[in-house]
Amino acid sequence: MNILKNIKRTSDLKLLLPNQLTQLAEEIRRLIIGVTSANGGHLASSLGVVELTIALYKVFNFPIDKLVWDVGHQAYAHKILTGRRDKFYTLRKSGGLAGFPKRTESIYDAFGTGHASTSISAALGMAAARDIDNEDYKVIAVIGDGALTGGEAFEALNNVGALKKDMLIILNDNEMSIAKNVGALSSYLSQIRTAPEYTKAKKNLGNFLHHLPKLGDTVYKTAGMLKDSIKNAFIAGGLFEEMGISYIGPVDGNNLFELINVLQRVENIRGPVLLHIFTKKGKGYIPAENKPDKFHGIGRFDIQTGESLSSPTTVPTYTQVFSKTLLEMARTDKDIVAITAAMPGGTGLTPFAQQYPKRFFDVGIAEEHAITMAAGLAAAGKKPVVALYSTFAQRGYDQILHDICLQKLPVTLCLDRAGIVGEDGPTHHGVFDYSFLRHIPNIMIMAPKDENELQRMMYTALAGKAPVVLRYPRGQAYGVQMDKEPQPIAIAKAEILETKGEIAIVAIGTMVYPAVEAAKKLAAEGIFCSVVNARFVKPLDKNLLLKLAATKKFILTVEENVLAGGFGSAVLELLCQNGALQCAVKCMGLPDQFIPQGSRKELLQMNNLTAEGIASFIKENIEINKINPTGAL
Amino acid sequence: MNILKNIKRTSDLKLLLPNQLTQLAEEIRRLIIGVTSANGGHLASSLGVVELTIALYKVFNFPIDKLVWDVGHQAYAHKILTGRRDKFYTLRKSGGLAGFPKRTESIYDAFGTGHASTSISAALGMAAARDIDNEDYKVIAVIGDGALTGGEAFEALNNVGALKKDMLIILNDNEMSIAKNVGALSSYLSQIRTAPEYTKAKKNLGNFLHHLPKLGDTVYKTAGMLKDSIKNAFIAGGLFEEMGISYIGPVDGNNLFELINVLQRVENIRGPVLLHIFTKKGKGYIPAENKPDKFHGIGRFDIQTGESLSSPTTVPTYTQVFSKTLLEMARTDKDIVAITAAMPGGTGLTPFAQQYPKRFFDVGIAEEHAITMAAGLAAAGKKPVVALYSTFAQRGYDQILHDICLQKLPVTLCLDRAGIVGEDGPTHHGVFDYSFLRHIPNIMIMAPKDENELQRMMYTALAGKAPVVLRYPRGQAYGVQMDKEPQPIAIAKAEILETKGEIAIVAIGTMVYPAVEAAKKLAAEGIFCSVVNARFVKPLDKNLLLKLAATKKFILTVEENVLAGGFGSAVLELLCQNGALQCAVKCMGLPDQFIPQGSRKELLQMNNLTAEGIASFIKENIEINKINPTGAL
Repeated sequence: MNILKNIKRTSDLKLLLPNQLTQLAEEIRRLIIGVTSANGGHLASSLGVVELTIALYKVFNFPIDKLVWDVGHQAYAHKILTGRRDKFYTLRKSGGLAGFPKRTESIYDAFGTGHASTSISAALGMAAARDIDNEDYKVIAVIGDGALTGGEAFEALNNVGALKKDMLIILNDNEMSIAKNVGALSSYLSQIRTAPEYTKAKKNLGNFLHHLPKLGDTVYKTAGMLKDSIKNAFIAGGLFEEMGISYIGPVDGNNLFELINVLQRVENIRGPVLLHIFTKKGKGYIPAENKPDKFHGIGRFDIQTGESLSSPTTVPTYTQVFSKTLLEMARTDKDIVAITAAMPGGTGLTPFAQQYPKRFFDVGIAEEHAITMAAGLAAAGKKPVVALYSTFAQRGYDQILHDICLQKLPVTLCLDRAGIVGEDGPTHHGVFDYSFLRHIPNIMIMAPKDENELQRMMYTALAGKAPVVLRYPRGQAYGVQMDKEPQPIAIAKAEILETKGEIAIVAIGTMVYPAVEAAKKLAAEGIFCSVVNARFVKPLDKNLLLKLAATKKFILTVEENVLAGGFGSAVLELLCQNGALQCAVKCMGLPDQFIPQGSRKELLQMNNLTAEGIASFIKENIEINKINPTGAL
Repeated sequence: MNILKNIKRTSDLKLLLPNQLTQLAEEIRRLIIGVTSANGGHLASSLGVVELTIALYKVFNFPIDKLVWDVGHQAYAHKILTGRRDKFYTLRKSGGLAGFPKRTESIYDAFGTGHASTSISAALGMAAARDIDNEDYKVIAVIGDGALTGGEAFEALNNVGALKKDMLIILNDNEMSIAKNVGALSSYLSQIRTAPEYTKAKKNLGNFLHHLPKLGDTVYKTAGMLKDSIKNAFIAGGLFEEMGISYIGPVDGNNLFELINVLQRVENIRGPVLLHIFTKKGKGYIPAENKPDKFHGIGRFDIQTGESLSSPTTVPTYTQVFSKTLLEMARTDKDIVAITAAMPGGTGLTPFAQQYPKRFFDVGIAEEHAITMAAGLAAAGKKPVVALYSTFAQRGYDQILHDICLQKLPVTLCLDRAGIVGEDGPTHHGVFDYSFLRHIPNIMIMAPKDENELQRMMYTALAGKAPVVLRYPRGQAYGVQMDKEPQPIAIAKAEILETKGEIAIVAIGTMVYPAVEAAKKLAAEGIFCSVVNARFVKPLDKNLLLKLAATKKFILTVEENVLAGGFGSAVLELLCQNGALQCAVKCMGLPDQFIPQGSRKELLQMNNLTAEGIASFIKENIEINKINPTGAL
């Protein structure tokens, strides 16, 4: 690490000789691979843009110039080069460096990212601000071909092409979202990439056209248009040119010196420019080059073999149970179709895609479209299952409300990675879904306590004819016995797990087992609690809740969601509307702040969402609420 | 109305002679103008597509074929031709025909719309369902050039180009969103429109290319590509062709017979086709042709003159007060910039745009981009004000959370048309904003009781350095005296308007004056209430609320938002978290269902959100809660 350790500030990089730059790239790669193998992280994307990052710092003058990384999981080299090398080993750890750009972490992180397709919008805002202030710094957005399929990126391009601000959009084309990229745009880009004839013809034609007279006269109008047309036809990237954005490329984005050259030339072009580079995801680490999707986001692994170091287990993940259950249901119910937005692997839909290719739709990073398309499928008689991560479903809030729920269409939304997701931090936690969904009329929201209940809830959802949301967390389930012939559960009925004492714990989803355990701990100390698995966030089990309010002295709700507008809030509303708020009620859940990064376990502990946390909280409330701990109703 | 009255079913239309079809168009126009002049409605868009609607019914076989109208405000002729002629006079009235397609209203309304840019997604879903079932009906989406700028439409096109399903997308290009359309795509389309040379060249070249041999051989690969390139260049619409969608057009969309011809030809093309037609918004009614934006959505008007029939008033609308205040503030604070998403007129930003063109951005129908661009502007030191209708802000939920609030960027969102909007009905009411926003960390939410408070809240928002949401309703304010030198209000402080009795009414926004009036009515009957103007949905005035809970017997919250997750819900959470739920609490607001269409006044009355409604509700609760009505604390 001879070169890297001597880079104290980004300007040091500008003085390096070509062979030193090459070595720097190598050193950065080793550091990224080393830390990621120990901490987990987004390896493949970050390896792909090491040369791009070096070239950007060689040519531009950050942080005066502004650099916005779309999604941001590819920004590891950027972090290493901007004063964060020594802390890089803390990447994604609790209290450590974030896995994504973060404004509070460094002045070089011009804009925080995490969700896809925002970079062009943010960069355009910065370019607009610069021009109002008559300043002259550069603004650069780096966006992948995956993120470019998100509608917001197109909205931004449409605006960029019209406003004509000086800005550089670097399209980092690696033919991947998390999985293989899909869609017409992707085919279009790959056509450019695989057609060297275009590029050659472009060079020759460019010279030729340059020597033609400029034809402004009306008589020559047709001829002029013909010239433009031919020019567009020969220049790869006509699609962007049609939108008013100068297209340059394609350029080999892993060729450091070609990149530096082209960036130096691009720097002086006025107006919006799209520079199309192609890079190899996982570049420089053979296991990642071979399996870029596996190494997109990965846990700890052995550097030599590329094998995962997570301990083998026989307990399935919720994702696996979802996957298997859907496959079984689809066998007998031909109307079931499945939709994902660029996450076939992460959501567990790959087996479905293989088994039922005609009934499977990966629409790319396009949650809005995914949800409305599902509504269209449902309107035409299908039973669509849309599998998304909870945090990305936020993109489709309006479509869930306006296209699915207003029309009461039978779409089942399966929200994976709900609750705390861990190391990806605040941009990725799925801790708002109860709150942004439960106020929508006609919606049903369920959360399973374990994998068998997930299976039963899927049967319940798909047996119905209305919109349903199922939410379940990242990671392993409990290893409970699975029903051979799963039965639907009763709608709006909670499950009573324990009936003792003057205290009732009403828990939902992931918090049910901790609640049961808390009750056991407390019982051992002579404090008796009832425990209810709510199962439904909406509709609530009204009769049971009113009965609890009438017969208990204290109700505690527990959820893995922000408290504001969440499950506990729904219970309060119900009791209030029914004039049943005589007993004391308290709610446990996540506070009104963005949850930082850290392991799921750590973060749950920090927020007292554990058996111990629940038990302590109850003990604190016994005296306040004059509860007889051994009282048994 | 000789022709129209004889159309009993849509198949009758197929039998009409050309001159009868022309007369039918005329009769439909008269009916639309007549009813809209009496009821108000979306006149200009509907007049523009009369010929298109007739041509579609002439050529296709609905409802077996499926027709999806994007936005749907242009579907009046469609409604008239599909068995709803006799009820058309009830358009937009309470209990009458909806102003938008609605699945429960007619089998011909294949998909309900209201918000923009959903039609291609829904239609693709239907086409996919059709192919799974091996059926062979046609699926058609009609989308305007305005709606095409919404990102979801692009997400859908990207998927359409890849899936290659048989479907027809009709691009109804009238160069308008509500206002003049903006953006690169719009320039691109207008280039096509104004270039007859393209079309001519296309016809000739098409013949020529048709006679070239198909070149598949590697040797001829370059030549083949050259052919494709030339073809694309000469065919207007290369942008769509690049995405894998066959482009046909442009066609005069107000020429009925040209349309019928082209639709008959298009019917037999396999794969996705985009048919580009240009129409005149307001066609056939001179005042609307001249001022299509004024006649986009309009109230009652005089058919002869086109003049509005709404009674003149000196009381400004909230929109006008927002408009004027922003203009004044921008004069002294050069950092204020304004953004809208295709609604410069509706949101009151037109004067700002005229006065400060460099600081104003109309980004087209693109709420996601608008919000992230605002975040970019804020990150670069500006104070962006984003003015949207509450219902359309739903599109930007994720961006508000992820780009603005997570980064605590000082963006002010001004949500106009919040609460009940009236005749546009369930797709347009802004009744969810408290619920979908208040659980977002770092957000501040205010709602003014009158126009002077709106002004003060704007000063408060722009004096701060954090994300703020202001929401205010459609229509007239109260005509109160305006402060000459408006002062900010205190953060998280409610305003105490009356301090009497054992009852406290805590109202927010539009519900404050009805609460005051209710208290007056009750006082006249010897029932005394305190009245609090909450001002903030977040952060709440904790001290005051805890004091009320400790000193009153009954707290009633009142809001113009759904109760689920709303303002009252926030009050309950606060009292619960602080163990202060000893007094009785009830919440008034909107129920857990989509609110139908009707006048704002009617709908507020139906939901008891009036002084009378509040007073009655309180009286019902006196005995239940053992309140001494004359008790004075």
